[in-house]
Amino acid sequence: MCRFLLYKSNSPILLADLLTRPAHSIIMQSFNCKLRLDLRRPMNGDGFGIGWYDEEPQTPGCIFTSTLPAWSNLNLQRLAEKIKSALVFAHVRATTGETATAESNCHPWQYGNLMWMHNGDIAGFEKIKRRLQNSLSEEIYLSIQGTTDSEHAFALFLNKLKQSASGGKALRDRTEFSFQELRIAMLATIAQINEWLDDAGVTDTSLMNFAVTDGQSVVCTRYITSSEKEGASLFYSSGSEFRSDAESGQYRMIKANKREDVVVVASEPLTFERTDWMVIPTNTLLVITPKLNVHLHPIHDKYWNPMRHQSTV
Amino acid sequence: MCRFLLYKSNSPILLADLLTRPAHSIIMQSFNCKLRLDLRRPMNGDGFGIGWYDEEPQTPGCIFTSTLPAWSNLNLQRLAEKIKSALVFAHVRATTGETATAESNCHPWQYGNLMWMHNGDIAGFEKIKRRLQNSLSEEIYLSIQGTTDSEHAFALFLNKLKQSASGGKALRDRTEFSFQELRIAMLATIAQINEWLDDAGVTDTSLMNFAVTDGQSVVCTRYITSSEKEGASLFYSSGSEFRSDAESGQYRMIKANKREDVVVVASEPLTFERTDWMVIPTNTLLVITPKLNVHLHPIHDKYWNPMRHQSTV
Amino acid sequence: MCRFLLYKSNSPILLADLLTRPAHSIIMQSFNCKLRLDLRRPMNGDGFGIGWYDEEPQTPGCIFTSTLPAWSNLNLQRLAEKIKSALVFAHVRATTGETATAESNCHPWQYGNLMWMHNGDIAGFEKIKRRLQNSLSEEIYLSIQGTTDSEHAFALFLNKLKQSASGGKALRDRTEFSFQELRIAMLATIAQINEWLDDAGVTDTSLMNFAVTDGQSVVCTRYITSSEKEGASLFYSSGSEFRSDAESGQYRMIKANKREDVVVVASEPLTFERTDWMVIPTNTLLVITPKLNVHLHPIHDKYWNPMRHQSTV
Amino acid sequence: MCRFLLYKSNSPILLADLLTRPAHSIIMQSFNCKLRLDLRRPMNGDGFGIGWYDEEPQTPGCIFTSTLPAWSNLNLQRLAEKIKSALVFAHVRATTGETATAESNCHPWQYGNLMWMHNGDIAGFEKIKRRLQNSLSEEIYLSIQGTTDSEHAFALFLNKLKQSASGGKALRDRTEFSFQELRIAMLATIAQINEWLDDAGVTDTSLMNFAVTDGQSVVCTRYITSSEKEGASLFYSSGSEFRSDAESGQYRMIKANKREDVVVVASEPLTFERTDWMVIPTNTLLVITPKLNVHLHPIHDKYWNPMRHQSTV
Repeated sequence: MCRFLLYKSNSPILLADLLTRPAHSIIMQSFNCKLRLDLRRPMNGDGFGIGWYDEEPQTPGCIFTSTLPAWSNLNLQRLAEKIKSALVFAHVRATTGETATAESNCHPWQYGNLMWMHNGDIAGFEKIKRRLQNSLSEEIYLSIQGTTDSEHAFALFLNKLKQSASGGKALRDRTEFSFQELRIAMLATIAQINEWLDDAGVTDTSLMNFAVTDGQSVVCTRYITSSEKEGASLFYSSGSEFRSDAESGQYRMIKANKREDVVVVASEPLTFERTDWMVIPTNTLLVITPKLNVHLHPIHDKYWNPMRHQSTV
Repeated sequence: MCRFLLYKSNSPILLADLLTRPAHSIIMQSFNCKLRLDLRRPMNGDGFGIGWYDEEPQTPGCIFTSTLPAWSNLNLQRLAEKIKSALVFAHVRATTGETATAESNCHPWQYGNLMWMHNGDIAGFEKIKRRLQNSLSEEIYLSIQGTTDSEHAFALFLNKLKQSASGGKALRDRTEFSFQELRIAMLATIAQINEWLDDAGVTDTSLMNFAVTDGQSVVCTRYITSSEKEGASLFYSSGSEFRSDAESGQYRMIKANKREDVVVVASEPLTFERTDWMVIPTNTLLVITPKLNVHLHPIHDKYWNPMRHQSTV
Repeated sequence: MCRFLLYKSNSPILLADLLTRPAHSIIMQSFNCKLRLDLRRPMNGDGFGIGWYDEEPQTPGCIFTSTLPAWSNLNLQRLAEKIKSALVFAHVRATTGETATAESNCHPWQYGNLMWMHNGDIAGFEKIKRRLQNSLSEEIYLSIQGTTDSEHAFALFLNKLKQSASGGKALRDRTEFSFQELRIAMLATIAQINEWLDDAGVTDTSLMNFAVTDGQSVVCTRYITSSEKEGASLFYSSGSEFRSDAESGQYRMIKANKREDVVVVASEPLTFERTDWMVIPTNTLLVITPKLNVHLHPIHDKYWNPMRHQSTV
Repeated sequence: MCRFLLYKSNSPILLADLLTRPAHSIIMQSFNCKLRLDLRRPMNGDGFGIGWYDEEPQTPGCIFTSTLPAWSNLNLQRLAEKIKSALVFAHVRATTGETATAESNCHPWQYGNLMWMHNGDIAGFEKIKRRLQNSLSEEIYLSIQGTTDSEHAFALFLNKLKQSASGGKALRDRTEFSFQELRIAMLATIAQINEWLDDAGVTDTSLMNFAVTDGQSVVCTRYITSSEKEGASLFYSSGSEFRSDAESGQYRMIKANKREDVVVVASEPLTFERTDWMVIPTNTLLVITPKLNVHLHPIHDKYWNPMRHQSTV
């Protein structure tokens, strides 16, 4: 079971304050995780990836990945002490044993200004892989570097985004997208995967917690192909400052005023103050606008179940 | 430009005697190579792979690959001092910059009892990649772990082998093949690639030095999609014993009697005795039978040029 | 907290049957360990090492180490399917954060025919490091490749072994040792470390589960610098065959007859049959002779406490 | 033979412009080097390291090292497109076969605000290693992570710097040093090594091209323990801007005015304009002051030979 974190704020945070110093960072969670679903692979030790944008959000972000576990990676620890960013994606990975542990299989992935990561897996992916590949434009098809379901879902998303875009500019050269565009392409991606899974007769449950950004807007989902079960956990928090307490090493979301200056979405709460964290309901899409407004959109498809949401805590 | 070596004999050789101890082994060649074609990437430092079969040739061979350069790999050096084998494939790799340096992109590859490696590259591969993938059986398509032209050529070979085989047993479960089967599938693979390249309008030159074995027979090619140019260099040598001289560190092919007990095929001569080495003519397929007979077969297709062969030395 | 396993038998075992296939192998233990002491670093994901001897026990063993986690190491998985050995050391490692994760810091280490590994750590090692180094012969001092307490303890052991040996042959060239020699040097090593720790005023507790072999005898310890606490756990089992059950994936120690054909020592029981496993009492040295007899020797120094042993289960 | 580069300027340069994009960068030199001395190891493929300071020169720099060859390191390529710095150290490494290829053996090294790298090697280092270690303060001794002569020379330098410093602050906490302090400690380091080598009877030639910085001043040497031979090559260039030509991919040192805004020191000229590059004479110490003034100081010891310098071109 993988795990991800995304951070967006008005002002840059030092990556160390987010990723390596706090005792309950996503890196340390990779040691000891309480909310995991998959007991066969209890550890996230098969690699990790960090993506971030600098002060020029209209240029592509940077990615640092490694097949070494995050907690013993000296380069990560040193870089995190230097790099500041107002938009960070972080992912720790546990292979499911089907795909090789290779840097090309580490999240997040990039395409032009876009960045993508995934927590979960697409059940029976091998049954729709060829059809998915054949649906792609030549350029997007050839951009795939690895073998994971997650990267292929990104390719499909890119293809949907490209199809819905009006007019000329190549996807790779566009420096920004509206969050509406991203949201529509995300929904189209999930709908398309579902359609193909149905056609292929796949009945196992897929977990599709996806996150995408163009450096300015963020769109992410908590999604499961079931109307009964809950999706892989996903939480968010917002406030005026997210920082770790120097003494305790614990994160805290400071709410000094009414303004939303920071939004964090994570597979597990990063602070002990559970009241800081809202559960993102299963089968919901979350948008963070460039101005840091947060919108939640239920995904009304055949797996939508209003009763499930009432019981979510 | 990559480089390969294959060794087949009646009795096992210590891998160290073949790979790590001699001053002119394929490993040391990766430092300093005289016959290379591609000056943009003068070094073979992007990883390597070794494959070998043990005394039970009807079980799959073993593979050791690394993205670290071979010459600084302590595990390789230690293993080579322990492992003996009568059938060895070795490959050093230089990426062309298009595909990631990942263990899943290191030669050789395996499928059941079969092992494959490639020296060269398929020009315009991206233009035929999708068509190649779509031609494959589901099982072979899903077995692809990386993104290289070389692994895809292996997948195509497997598909041709499967199509030509009569009767039931799954390819992955077959423990041996006749060298005729391997030869026919190899020729069909090259013919198929050529056809697709032609359809795609690719006119750049492809180098297809392929090698395949089932643990008993070996089939390899020196092939170029040109009737004028020479293919990537390939040599072979045979005799009663191949060993490195303790003092000089040079390899020598001993010819103590008429029997052929050892056959070596390599991208470059491994000994200073150039008379020990025969050039495999461009566009030729070489077979080593289980009994160590060597057959050369010219590949009579549109790139066949008898005049070219007369001038080959 | 690290973890180790050693296996000695009359006939070779396939490494896969010992290390990678069983659900409760040391490799899988590295995911999920029940008996660990150090909760700060709950995982053994910082590298591993395997050492083994082949049919020629009088030649040095072979070592395969990696800083990648064992469970995602394809080379390990493939090699384990091919290599057989009657004497195996295996170690998984969690750094304590003080020393780099480097292959030179992976257990086991070798010196000539000898192989060494350590589970535990020497508290306040930095306070005795210089003194330890200064006690070493020049050759042994210069053989140190890494920075760990464990490798330095091995160097000290070698020095003690060299000092006690009568007569000429260099340590590195000796192909066998009596188990008495190994036992005496092991006790001298522990005594020396204790003396220096006392001199340096170190009062924190050290855990010294050491194991050493020359390819024929094995000597190992369960030791703690305390007369109250228990040492890091260590168990052994013996019987006529140690194999994993094909169906359940569980190990079993078969006791078909009175003969002892296999001895296994491990940080944790490898089978569910707890009655198969004897606790090695704290502060005990265990010898496995070349003929597979097992002797337990209490270590009678100032940390010896007969009362502790009565309560051990 | 290793190779290094250092860059200091008034305004930050994008690392990609210095390291990865130009065809003749230090990275590409690692493929194909014309001026090397050591033909046994013609390639620099055993790892690399980059160190840089950001806009806050009074905080420690950052280091990125890898045992993978620089030219195939995706993380390096991506980071270099994002990171800007006005003070960069870069080093590519070829092991001499004596020390392990480990990240702990990659240049540069850091201690507090100081950064160090070395091109060359100390002949007979093993004969003075123990004496060197014994001369060090406890804290500096324990900071050593690897086994190289280069890192040990840095430790000795730190010890000399500490001894010459008046007054209280711990070395690790000092944020700046005068270039005079650095120069004196550098000369003391070389003198001390020479004295010990003499005592140990080492007559082989050592190459000590060292470079050190505190983030503001740089001191480096071209030094050899011989009054006849030339040291390992070292050049420098200065001007108003150092940039690579977009079309040709060649570096150029622009001299738009009299001001010195950039100083580059490198093992080999980085541009084809040889007139841009001044040879640093053998056995010379070079200082770059915080204000970018460059001073050359002959090292007047027993290896000083004024005649040698006249013939240097």
